[in-house]
Amino acid sequence: MPSIDADRFLRDLNELRRIGAYRTGVHRPTYSPQDMESRRWLMDRMAETGLEPSIDGIGNVYGRHRGRGPHLLAGSHIETQNHAGWLDGALGVVAGLALARAGLPVDVAAFADEEGHFEGGFLGSKSIIGILDEAEIDRSRNRTDGTPLREALAAAGLAGKPRLQLEKGRHKGFFEMHIEQGIQLETAGLRAGVVTGIVGIWQWRIVIEGMQDHAGGTTMAERKDAGLAAVRLLAMLDQEIPKACGDRSTWTCGRIALDPGAPSIIPGRADILFQFRDIDTAVLERMERCLRACVQESNRRERTTATLHAVSKSSPAPCDPAMMAALDAAAEALAPGLWQRMPSGAGHDAQYIARVMPVAMLFTPSIGGISHHWAEDTKEEDLALCIRILGDAAGRFLEA
Amino acid sequence: MPSIDADRFLRDLNELRRIGAYRTGVHRPTYSPQDMESRRWLMDRMAETGLEPSIDGIGNVYGRHRGRGPHLLAGSHIETQNHAGWLDGALGVVAGLALARAGLPVDVAAFADEEGHFEGGFLGSKSIIGILDEAEIDRSRNRTDGTPLREALAAAGLAGKPRLQLEKGRHKGFFEMHIEQGIQLETAGLRAGVVTGIVGIWQWRIVIEGMQDHAGGTTMAERKDAGLAAVRLLAMLDQEIPKACGDRSTWTCGRIALDPGAPSIIPGRADILFQFRDIDTAVLERMERCLRACVQESNRRERTTATLHAVSKSSPAPCDPAMMAALDAAAEALAPGLWQRMPSGAGHDAQYIARVMPVAMLFTPSIGGISHHWAEDTKEEDLALCIRILGDAAGRFLEA
Repeated sequence: MPSIDADRFLRDLNELRRIGAYRTGVHRPTYSPQDMESRRWLMDRMAETGLEPSIDGIGNVYGRHRGRGPHLLAGSHIETQNHAGWLDGALGVVAGLALARAGLPVDVAAFADEEGHFEGGFLGSKSIIGILDEAEIDRSRNRTDGTPLREALAAAGLAGKPRLQLEKGRHKGFFEMHIEQGIQLETAGLRAGVVTGIVGIWQWRIVIEGMQDHAGGTTMAERKDAGLAAVRLLAMLDQEIPKACGDRSTWTCGRIALDPGAPSIIPGRADILFQFRDIDTAVLERMERCLRACVQESNRRERTTATLHAVSKSSPAPCDPAMMAALDAAAEALAPGLWQRMPSGAGHDAQYIARVMPVAMLFTPSIGGISHHWAEDTKEEDLALCIRILGDAAGRFLEA
Repeated sequence: MPSIDADRFLRDLNELRRIGAYRTGVHRPTYSPQDMESRRWLMDRMAETGLEPSIDGIGNVYGRHRGRGPHLLAGSHIETQNHAGWLDGALGVVAGLALARAGLPVDVAAFADEEGHFEGGFLGSKSIIGILDEAEIDRSRNRTDGTPLREALAAAGLAGKPRLQLEKGRHKGFFEMHIEQGIQLETAGLRAGVVTGIVGIWQWRIVIEGMQDHAGGTTMAERKDAGLAAVRLLAMLDQEIPKACGDRSTWTCGRIALDPGAPSIIPGRADILFQFRDIDTAVLERMERCLRACVQESNRRERTTATLHAVSKSSPAPCDPAMMAALDAAAEALAPGLWQRMPSGAGHDAQYIARVMPVAMLFTPSIGGISHHWAEDTKEEDLALCIRILGDAAGRFLEA
């Protein structure tokens, strides 16, 4: 079992925390001066760990192990959401460093813009597996201020640099450690989560067309009320989706916009955002059939017309059974009975890396489930325990 | 039966239509040059009809019958919504003129700003019954451009003029003719509607507080989804209100605002606008009890908190039975089988005048139900028929 220096791991995390500090969290938007400073800090740490550091044309920082393989890849992202938490992606990057410091044959990566400050998102992990083309970089802009990605890359000193690609066959698998961003571990009194996969997110837009009318002059029987049809359809989905979903599926209506949205006007149009998530494509397909049937039934029952538009369908990324088994064994050895398997409801760099190698993720608890906010935190003893679990699992998986 | 000159009535309407003409409609916002021109035009018509015309400090134009009573009051409003129809309020004002031209003992009134270009609305009918105080005039501003009402009155030459009050005991009743602003007459193939009353509108706001959370990291069982609670509450109202309502009640949810309204965020808050209308206060109270019970039930069932706020509760204004009976008899005499009784779902000056004397309203059909739009129209033969019905009814009511 590799000898993980958990104290050093915590010192590294706390040192990185000073860059872009904001209250108890950090503010390091992608390619900002603070973000670039954190990337330079990371390269220094990689160099002192004996890794060969580099930064590429999309901002990916890569620390290459100088010795023989088989190699592992470990990491995550180092930029943050605005005024967000000190752990999030930084945790997985510094965890990679800790594995390398323990002498494991690990390449460490910090993938750029997992947080999606720029249109597209996941720029670094997409780039390193070869699915980010130059045209997409040309088009992408900062979602907040509209700065073209090219300009931001130039301002960060990255223009013209080549973009690193993962070396085929070099890695046995990718480990990403991350905070849970939820309260399942905390609520159950557990200290670690072995991730079974990263959910696919199928995002839909449902547009219902009715007839805008005066709420006083139009009898109930004459109405083509798009808002009422929306309520009935969403109530139907609330009844039917539970019959189609899996154990850990989630589904969410995030927006119901009624047009014109005035007190005395019967809505002529409703615009609904609806999504569901699961790690199993078969379950996603079952939920899609249910959604389509409900929309069809709405059109049979109502005097309005509902149309379903697929906005995006990301593929689930199941974790590797052998890597999960190594994490299970390590967790049970170091925290017997205090861990569980669980899906990741949020997206992570691992979902892209999974397209080119086996991946696994380890979740630490999140205090109160707070995420993407400066108050995000995890107990130091949980962080220390999880880095030891990760190190143990990496050793087990390399030997397996 | 008084001898109504329907041709002259139509000529008057078409002459008035030229003032502020916009496409086939008119544009005469309250106190605009076009609106003031129409008020001067009306005073000229009143004078030539033998009435004593005046305009008061709120812009009410009043044509006082010079002969003996008992008198009737007839009229409506003469300003229009922006780029709106040629009939709407003008119809009722010119109808009053037609009654006077036929020799009936009628005072004719055009009440200012029924359309509510200024905050408060119904300025003229409120003023003439004595419920518009100077402080409200001081406060009110134009809803579109923020011009203070005082400035608008000064620009229209009305500053400092006294405000006319209705002479107590002078009138036996008030007749207001208006377009239906709906399609009930047209759909049923009818040519006139005897209005049973003007509905009360009880407007509510329902705020549901839940917990904003990540749509991926929060299991279904952990959620406090304000949007889902809104859907369930509105679906419950869709089931329950029909058991509490009256024959001609209407109820409308015009807005469902979910906060923050993003695809991947469980809504932490829902803001709902809900209203119902009926001409019977007992029915309105029954619907309120139903609404309160549903909100209470939502709070029992859900992990969210729904709070009900009363935004406004206007009183229904039932029409006078004797005046309705006169309209029924006149309609049956002139259009046998081609008329019906019906409530007015929209507000009218008559709802304020009803506080000081008996009122009745006669609806003409609206082509396609179009209202508050320049394309609003009614067939000339329906206009001619309805003015004869109104004249006949006025005669019957005076004799009754």
